Amino acid sequence: MTDTKNTPLRIAVFGAGRIGGVHARNADAHPAVTLSHLVDPVADAACAALAAETGAQVAGADDVFADDRVDGIVIASSTDSHADLLRRAADAGKAVFCEKPISLDFAQVEEVAEKVQEAGIPAMLGFQRRYDASFRAARDRIASGAAGRLEHLIMQSRDPGPPPAAYVATSGGMFRDTAIHDLDMARFLLDEDIATVYAVGSCLISPELGAAGDIDTLMITLTTRSGRLAQVVNCRRGPMGYDQRLEALCAGEVLFVENRPRTTLRVDTPDGALAPPPENYFIDRFAQAYRDEMDAFASMIAEGTQPLAGMRDGLEAQRLVEAAIVSHETGAAVQISPDWRP
Amino acid sequence: MTDTKNTPLRIAVFGAGRIGGVHARNADAHPAVTLSHLVDPVADAACAALAAETGAQVAGADDVFADDRVDGIVIASSTDSHADLLRRAADAGKAVFCEKPISLDFAQVEEVAEKVQEAGIPAMLGFQRRYDASFRAARDRIASGAAGRLEHLIMQSRDPGPPPAAYVATSGGMFRDTAIHDLDMARFLLDEDIATVYAVGSCLISPELGAAGDIDTLMITLTTRSGRLAQVVNCRRGPMGYDQRLEALCAGEVLFVENRPRTTLRVDTPDGALAPPPENYFIDRFAQAYRDEMDAFASMIAEGTQPLAGMRDGLEAQRLVEAAIVSHETGAAVQISPDWRP
Amino acid sequence: MTDTKNTPLRIAVFGAGRIGGVHARNADAHPAVTLSHLVDPVADAACAALAAETGAQVAGADDVFADDRVDGIVIASSTDSHADLLRRAADAGKAVFCEKPISLDFAQVEEVAEKVQEAGIPAMLGFQRRYDASFRAARDRIASGAAGRLEHLIMQSRDPGPPPAAYVATSGGMFRDTAIHDLDMARFLLDEDIATVYAVGSCLISPELGAAGDIDTLMITLTTRSGRLAQVVNCRRGPMGYDQRLEALCAGEVLFVENRPRTTLRVDTPDGALAPPPENYFIDRFAQAYRDEMDAFASMIAEGTQPLAGMRDGLEAQRLVEAAIVSHETGAAVQISPDWRP
Amino acid sequence: MTDTKNTPLRIAVFGAGRIGGVHARNADAHPAVTLSHLVDPVADAACAALAAETGAQVAGADDVFADDRVDGIVIASSTDSHADLLRRAADAGKAVFCEKPISLDFAQVEEVAEKVQEAGIPAMLGFQRRYDASFRAARDRIASGAAGRLEHLIMQSRDPGPPPAAYVATSGGMFRDTAIHDLDMARFLLDEDIATVYAVGSCLISPELGAAGDIDTLMITLTTRSGRLAQVVNCRRGPMGYDQRLEALCAGEVLFVENRPRTTLRVDTPDGALAPPPENYFIDRFAQAYRDEMDAFASMIAEGTQPLAGMRDGLEAQRLVEAAIVSHETGAAVQISPDWRP
Repeated sequence: MTDTKNTPLRIAVFGAGRIGGVHARNADAHPAVTLSHLVDPVADAACAALAAETGAQVAGADDVFADDRVDGIVIASSTDSHADLLRRAADAGKAVFCEKPISLDFAQVEEVAEKVQEAGIPAMLGFQRRYDASFRAARDRIASGAAGRLEHLIMQSRDPGPPPAAYVATSGGMFRDTAIHDLDMARFLLDEDIATVYAVGSCLISPELGAAGDIDTLMITLTTRSGRLAQVVNCRRGPMGYDQRLEALCAGEVLFVENRPRTTLRVDTPDGALAPPPENYFIDRFAQAYRDEMDAFASMIAEGTQPLAGMRDGLEAQRLVEAAIVSHETGAAVQISPDWRP
Repeated sequence: MTDTKNTPLRIAVFGAGRIGGVHARNADAHPAVTLSHLVDPVADAACAALAAETGAQVAGADDVFADDRVDGIVIASSTDSHADLLRRAADAGKAVFCEKPISLDFAQVEEVAEKVQEAGIPAMLGFQRRYDASFRAARDRIASGAAGRLEHLIMQSRDPGPPPAAYVATSGGMFRDTAIHDLDMARFLLDEDIATVYAVGSCLISPELGAAGDIDTLMITLTTRSGRLAQVVNCRRGPMGYDQRLEALCAGEVLFVENRPRTTLRVDTPDGALAPPPENYFIDRFAQAYRDEMDAFASMIAEGTQPLAGMRDGLEAQRLVEAAIVSHETGAAVQISPDWRP
Repeated sequence: MTDTKNTPLRIAVFGAGRIGGVHARNADAHPAVTLSHLVDPVADAACAALAAETGAQVAGADDVFADDRVDGIVIASSTDSHADLLRRAADAGKAVFCEKPISLDFAQVEEVAEKVQEAGIPAMLGFQRRYDASFRAARDRIASGAAGRLEHLIMQSRDPGPPPAAYVATSGGMFRDTAIHDLDMARFLLDEDIATVYAVGSCLISPELGAAGDIDTLMITLTTRSGRLAQVVNCRRGPMGYDQRLEALCAGEVLFVENRPRTTLRVDTPDGALAPPPENYFIDRFAQAYRDEMDAFASMIAEGTQPLAGMRDGLEAQRLVEAAIVSHETGAAVQISPDWRP
Repeated sequence: MTDTKNTPLRIAVFGAGRIGGVHARNADAHPAVTLSHLVDPVADAACAALAAETGAQVAGADDVFADDRVDGIVIASSTDSHADLLRRAADAGKAVFCEKPISLDFAQVEEVAEKVQEAGIPAMLGFQRRYDASFRAARDRIASGAAGRLEHLIMQSRDPGPPPAAYVATSGGMFRDTAIHDLDMARFLLDEDIATVYAVGSCLISPELGAAGDIDTLMITLTTRSGRLAQVVNCRRGPMGYDQRLEALCAGEVLFVENRPRTTLRVDTPDGALAPPPENYFIDRFAQAYRDEMDAFASMIAEGTQPLAGMRDGLEAQRLVEAAIVSHETGAAVQISPDWRP
């Protein structure tokens, strides 16, 4: 764990909602980090409570960007604020750790990613699944060569239940909201350019989501330049709860990332052997991954360590998302190239 | 188990190869069946040995069709003989249990299926996976309503290793040889017309298969008329062995059919907890399913019981196979209708 | 599989009850065996039905022992008939495969075991668990040295539910009826003389069994001469069904023999992941083991192959049973030696 | 979580070793607790480092007991200091959270437990397994009646490897060091007086431990007044690592507490399906349980909440330990009563 106790890094967190709270508490608990500011003009009360708990100062964005002692910012505010905060961080020369997505508008994603790169600020993107010990162990085993070449990949991600219909507008729809994580994981594991994207989707679970123009079930097929295959299956329903797994067929092994049960209590009943449901949702399932992200953020600032996910990963995952949306809308597979855009 | 001891059914088996041997032995062991004839002009020695073991008579096809005492025939001979034997059984009025496929030529499949139907002979098709206790339990749980509506489906089927390249010609290629079982299972579980078929495939494992014009890895996406989704993943490689599973997301439950380990001996080692590999291959994995098929065949003849898979199921599965082949060749999704043909 | 087709072995089965039926059908199905006679003067109707199914001849004991063409007998009749049939087999020079126990009277066990040995007839005892593929794989892994020295052992055996109280008299009580299998398995795996036996037992489940003088829950602690430890846990209750497992701590590995689920269908529900109950009872769980016993019996007769369990194993397991009973009655551990007797 | 932010509880921790470090950090991180002092005259350097990390003051015992602002003390120092610190806490009227054991001398255990009780100070004992979510869920399910009456119990606890021989003297031997946790768990789950204790033990793994007069493998059989049975199996060897499980046969269910694997990455290899080893050792396995203990300590002080384990639980577990030692030494089962002492 990064330890710069003598001169702790000063970090500001934008957003005092659920995920902002996670990052703020992790910054506070990190031995090498001081949580200096919290910014959330929308959620006053939550922001004040979080500040009281962590000892951070409630501040406005201008104060943060003007404060030379602030080393980095965490962008966990609403999606529509991400691009502007990234631009301001680039201008102010502050390291940035941004929750996905960069923007729901792909042109803006490209523009901001380029601006951040040109500014040369340390930047990482919040694909926390890359930091999860199990997903990471799968990737390391592939990257090390121990498993043999990854030939095909199946990823299942299911939420416990559908979000409210109002969520559609702010999330950009299911492809942008949920599939982006699996598409990023596909890139993380395959480590090769994607050649084609085909997507199907339906509204089978929540008529309210359908009325709002969204879907709740989707499948995306990817092929890489060399012909390797990946499948993403997403669903807004998980009868047993949050269900996030993958299966990677490699030349010498098959790797499975399974769910983590809440406890290890198994009950043998007349109906069979009952194992506990998985951890409730992403906040629980990825609690340690979020801590490791904060540590990676500190390491990136203090030591220049490359994060597992950077701005370009955010851009490329969103490119695949947009291609999937086009495929879903047209019914045709989309051939993509490094500069494809919707 | 069907029991007609006083007047046992007389059954002839065509084909003395691996799967013919399975059916011949199961017929011999069935209390209501007498294995009367074995026919295999190609494999003389194997046929003689099997006859010696079972007490059946080695015969020619003409003898069998001319013998009024023969109640039914099992077609387990080479694929190119299936269509003709089905026609002769229809003409001779004999019940038939035919291994898949009916033919590699779809026009012939349609013609023979129609002829068999018009002849009105009892006919069943060898989709043995439908008879497997675990797959069948999944289907029964869906059909009963206990699991809620099936919304999406993922099927993985992996062979232990690739076949010799020479197999390509007789098998009709990977879609016709392996995907047909999963496509049939999709129909069995979804119980609804398929609307679109999209397929990708690659040769990643066996350059020999590739040189012979075949692939060894494929994914097929199906949508139904009502928008439900299914995914087929097939591979000619199974690092741990024969790997055949499915996962069915229903409104109230997720059903998983898992592999069956060879033994129940688990070994905890310094590297982790090692569970045994699955049963070696289809002959082992589906041993009981093949016995249950023979019993279903006897029941169909003696009591008119509907089998789990009939000629029409063979036809429809092959229609999906052909659509997948078209999709793979064109790169486009195929819209299908009840009378679609390649 | 033993194959002596040209001169099949002629086997007579004594007892047409549940386990007698299993052995009779296995003899009938074995390619090297002819089931020549069935003897059961008590259960006339069952014996006649079994004879009709298998084609065996219903006979009296005298006929069997007088018939020179009978190569061996299977003793699956009531417990109180075992000793006398063993004596007659010894006198008649016929190979014998005897269900446990040899007798409920230990003095008689010793006398009969000695007589059989002196007669030199091929003799095997029905400890079918030794023939189960999983238990046997555990033993082979220990015997091969791969697992390192077995240091301690835990065996759990639970019946689905308590037997009727009337069963107490004929079974000789829970130690003689159920613990004998685990005590034999302890000997099979430890392969060393037992030094001490300590047993506790209670009637917690079935007051009827208690009223009849029996218990329904017991634990037995064994130590070997070299200080290795084994624990037997037996219970007349298995909430999920027949529950028969073991765990062997070896120097380099821990081996677990688990239950075998009825199917491989797992169901994820809001309450957790539900795996199927184990196979219903010993007839199902050990179906293949019983077939392998019959094959071992044929091999012993035809080729002189040593069976996995002989008369001496029956004697020694019963010695441990009697020591456990003494311990349970006195509350003290029992020091045993090779010639200890109750 | 207990929250007394306005007037945080001031806690001193005795002992800056491994477990002292765990408690000190948990106290520091608890929102309602201030870690005021650290006391460890033996381990100066470790104490200073821990103080620097947590912001606590390094102090002597006299300072702590004289400081009226100290609400409670955590006793995590060497075993031989426990009894005296408990007496001083009783005299000073400070709440106490004491690691097991109270003392290696049973007479002293009785005397100190009585003194603490008479003083009326809030006191809890460090049986952290009671606070583990899985063991606790098992107990809650039993206590709620959902599982039916607990009838017998099997507990396996295996360390990854044997401790150095020097550890024997300070630990009091294997019964006092490891079996005490399982004996406490037996009391926790059975919730009834124990009637008999029988123990066997051997030195099979570490000749060094044997030379020092200790054992490394043991089994203890308990019976309760009503005849229920429990088995403790302890071993200084765990080939896959720290192995701590239990199995509780209840009238309606069997409850299993299993190990928690380090990750959820399963690897299917040609040798079988490999699941990850369990969490490395008690510090990892019980990380959350230790946090929950600290919270329970705060709740006990602030709100008078009964802890899951009190001084009397420490006393009674040690009584069973002493009885097991007597049984092991004499080879006889020990009848115990509420006032039994060695």
